[in-house]
Amino acid sequence: MRAPADETFAEMLRAAVPGLSVGAPGASYLEEPRGRHKGCGGVLVKPASTAEVAAVLRTCHAAGVGVVPYGGGTGLVGGQIVEDGPAPVILSLEKMTAIRAITRHVLEIEAGATLQAAQDAADGAERLFPLTIASQGSARIGGVLATNAGGVNVLRYGNARELCLGVEAVLADGTVISGLKHLRKDNTGYDLKDLLIGSEGTLGIITAATLRLLPKPAAVGTAMMVVESPSAALELLELAEARMPGCVSAFELISGQGLRFLDAVGPDVHQPFTTRPDWSVLIEIGLPEGLAAEEALAGLFEAAEGLVSDGVIASSENQRAQMWALRESLPEANKRIGSISSHDISLPLPKLAQFIEEAQVALRALADIRINCFGHVGDGNLHFNAFPAEGRDRKEYENLRRAIPETVYDLVDRFGGSISAEHGIGRLKVGDLERYGDPGKLAAMRAIKAALDPKGILNPGAVLAER
Amino acid sequence: MRAPADETFAEMLRAAVPGLSVGAPGASYLEEPRGRHKGCGGVLVKPASTAEVAAVLRTCHAAGVGVVPYGGGTGLVGGQIVEDGPAPVILSLEKMTAIRAITRHVLEIEAGATLQAAQDAADGAERLFPLTIASQGSARIGGVLATNAGGVNVLRYGNARELCLGVEAVLADGTVISGLKHLRKDNTGYDLKDLLIGSEGTLGIITAATLRLLPKPAAVGTAMMVVESPSAALELLELAEARMPGCVSAFELISGQGLRFLDAVGPDVHQPFTTRPDWSVLIEIGLPEGLAAEEALAGLFEAAEGLVSDGVIASSENQRAQMWALRESLPEANKRIGSISSHDISLPLPKLAQFIEEAQVALRALADIRINCFGHVGDGNLHFNAFPAEGRDRKEYENLRRAIPETVYDLVDRFGGSISAEHGIGRLKVGDLERYGDPGKLAAMRAIKAALDPKGILNPGAVLAER
Repeated sequence: MRAPADETFAEMLRAAVPGLSVGAPGASYLEEPRGRHKGCGGVLVKPASTAEVAAVLRTCHAAGVGVVPYGGGTGLVGGQIVEDGPAPVILSLEKMTAIRAITRHVLEIEAGATLQAAQDAADGAERLFPLTIASQGSARIGGVLATNAGGVNVLRYGNARELCLGVEAVLADGTVISGLKHLRKDNTGYDLKDLLIGSEGTLGIITAATLRLLPKPAAVGTAMMVVESPSAALELLELAEARMPGCVSAFELISGQGLRFLDAVGPDVHQPFTTRPDWSVLIEIGLPEGLAAEEALAGLFEAAEGLVSDGVIASSENQRAQMWALRESLPEANKRIGSISSHDISLPLPKLAQFIEEAQVALRALADIRINCFGHVGDGNLHFNAFPAEGRDRKEYENLRRAIPETVYDLVDRFGGSISAEHGIGRLKVGDLERYGDPGKLAAMRAIKAALDPKGILNPGAVLAER
Repeated sequence: MRAPADETFAEMLRAAVPGLSVGAPGASYLEEPRGRHKGCGGVLVKPASTAEVAAVLRTCHAAGVGVVPYGGGTGLVGGQIVEDGPAPVILSLEKMTAIRAITRHVLEIEAGATLQAAQDAADGAERLFPLTIASQGSARIGGVLATNAGGVNVLRYGNARELCLGVEAVLADGTVISGLKHLRKDNTGYDLKDLLIGSEGTLGIITAATLRLLPKPAAVGTAMMVVESPSAALELLELAEARMPGCVSAFELISGQGLRFLDAVGPDVHQPFTTRPDWSVLIEIGLPEGLAAEEALAGLFEAAEGLVSDGVIASSENQRAQMWALRESLPEANKRIGSISSHDISLPLPKLAQFIEEAQVALRALADIRINCFGHVGDGNLHFNAFPAEGRDRKEYENLRRAIPETVYDLVDRFGGSISAEHGIGRLKVGDLERYGDPGKLAAMRAIKAALDPKGILNPGAVLAER
């Protein structure tokens, strides 16, 4: 059993790590964005260096005290929240925000810097760090990597994992792994970087990273196009990729339900289509020199005759921003409506359209609900969220709070999909992972966790259930 | 201590796995391409299914018998060769070559299929599997993934790791991990796929994989350009990427020494420049519709005035093939000359040119040698190989067989580079990894190895020294 992070332990930390910021965690460290779970935490520490992180972990390891790594607090699966058990140390990286180095190809940055700060640093060097998520102003690099964040540009540029060349991290016992390589190719031993990325703070705490910087496209174009169905959307994607291989950077599916939610509750955004289409896509391309983005999109629109019934091509930066504002307002509209259950899932592309049909039928058989299905369809990633019927409250659906996700996940599983495409497992999906995960993989995960964190102090109860 | 794979154990295998191909390994299973090391192996098994692989490993695990996974035998660091100790089982994947499924986006293929077979399957579906290495006709997918192979297209498409969506693998105790996902986004637990990729058969045996298929570029262009220096080559790369972001698929540095080796010993290939330039690059681009590749390369050539002194743009498929034949003949020419020591290294791009200068000076201070420095410079990856002076034999340099690599690797290490960019550690670089590797990383690697393979039966002595 772990020991609690109480006042005695706080004193131990102060003695062991002179100068360390040690205090009581304010309310903001014990909340999560959806407001459904409240955390407990005995002691908040804010180390200012990797050496301080290592010293904190050595002390916690010796005493058997749990540690919850804390980034921007934007995670949606409770990875930053311990609801019960011995109060843990909350270790916030917020003081470690330095840019340690920047070249044309690599940004070396500390884990407490926000994703926005990384993007801005790249932009300042006239380069691109393409990872883009709605919470990037608050989300910190450590959390972005720990959860292998995805977002809208994965189609072209990959997840956080593919954009990270190396990490510096501290293991449970305080061992520092110094892996801040500026290298694209490095086959020297096991891939600890990728093991730590996506481990949600349960195997080590990432303190800094080297991120890939890329050249900016010579021309960027954005459009919204109306399609008949998700299946037509995927055909349009095929067409776009055949014409512009590797140049389609975002391909987002938007459902009519989402647009009607925006009409009903806001945020107030410009909608390009007067009649709200049942299905539309936002497509963004980035091209080499010699091609005009608007022309390329117009060419795609023409070539997609029969597949696309209407479309708007952004002809100014302002119009482009409006389209993205619409897309990025969907989660806020969802929040204002109040979902019964949200599902961050992915499907093999050839099965995605059939999944949407069958899942809608299956959920509507359970209850009178509305479904807002949208997301990064180019990656097979859907946010498939269930809402109360108009005029009804989500409290009326309390009895379905388990049946709805089970129905969705059973179907996802049957179609060979993932029950967590980009948000991770955190604490909310631990049971789902046990249910749907491959038993061989789970056994190997437990063996690795026991090997690297034998006392189970790192983010206890996240990803893997405590035994 | 492990037990030997002797005739008694062969009988045990036959009894435990009815129908399994069990025999004595022929000479070809005990050699490696450079002919420097001879392996020992007591029993050769050729399982025909994942279930058979699992049964073999269960039996080996129970008896404490070592297992060397065997793909195409093309590895250059001795990962496929055990020179001494108890004779291991050699487990060849050559019977598992099936294509299990193919869609527009994913090729599901068994580990014994060659890389060429994977490329051909993609091509048959009018898609691209971009991983390209000289040995692709023999190298098998299992080995390609186990060593995280690189090659000429990493610049645009990434290493084997980035092109693999999931693996099926068998752990030391026979546990099967079924991870053949067809998904681009899947954040459900630790990234075992990437841990197994690059682990060189020491953590598990990959039996099948899902590989990413990509759209083919609408237009492909290839050129060779003469530059003043490696530094000018990197400036040219910058320029090319600024004009055609994400569209430069290969950027290979070629030294005059390599061209002179071809003149002296063959293979007989067409050389585009009558006077052999000290430095030249082979550049390949893949463009979207609407751009002509030859024009784009001509535009680059013009824009590179002052940087590029001469150039040839391929105007036919034949000319393109000639350029690649020249590039791909360099390793064979090297072999015919006979290197004293070869080094597969990578450097941070901003330090690469300086490294080449300093390394040449340092090696020439040791002895009168020739250096052929070439490779995937766009990824920072160099093959930096030392040869005898003209008219001398490599035997005369026997006393420098340790000093030369040490000099190179010390410098690589000082410049923040990697002592193995794409070939891996195998057995030949185990000592180098201990010397230059991060101690924290090595400790974590040993903990993971002990957790997943407690008896140390999987590819014993590869990557990590046996204790």
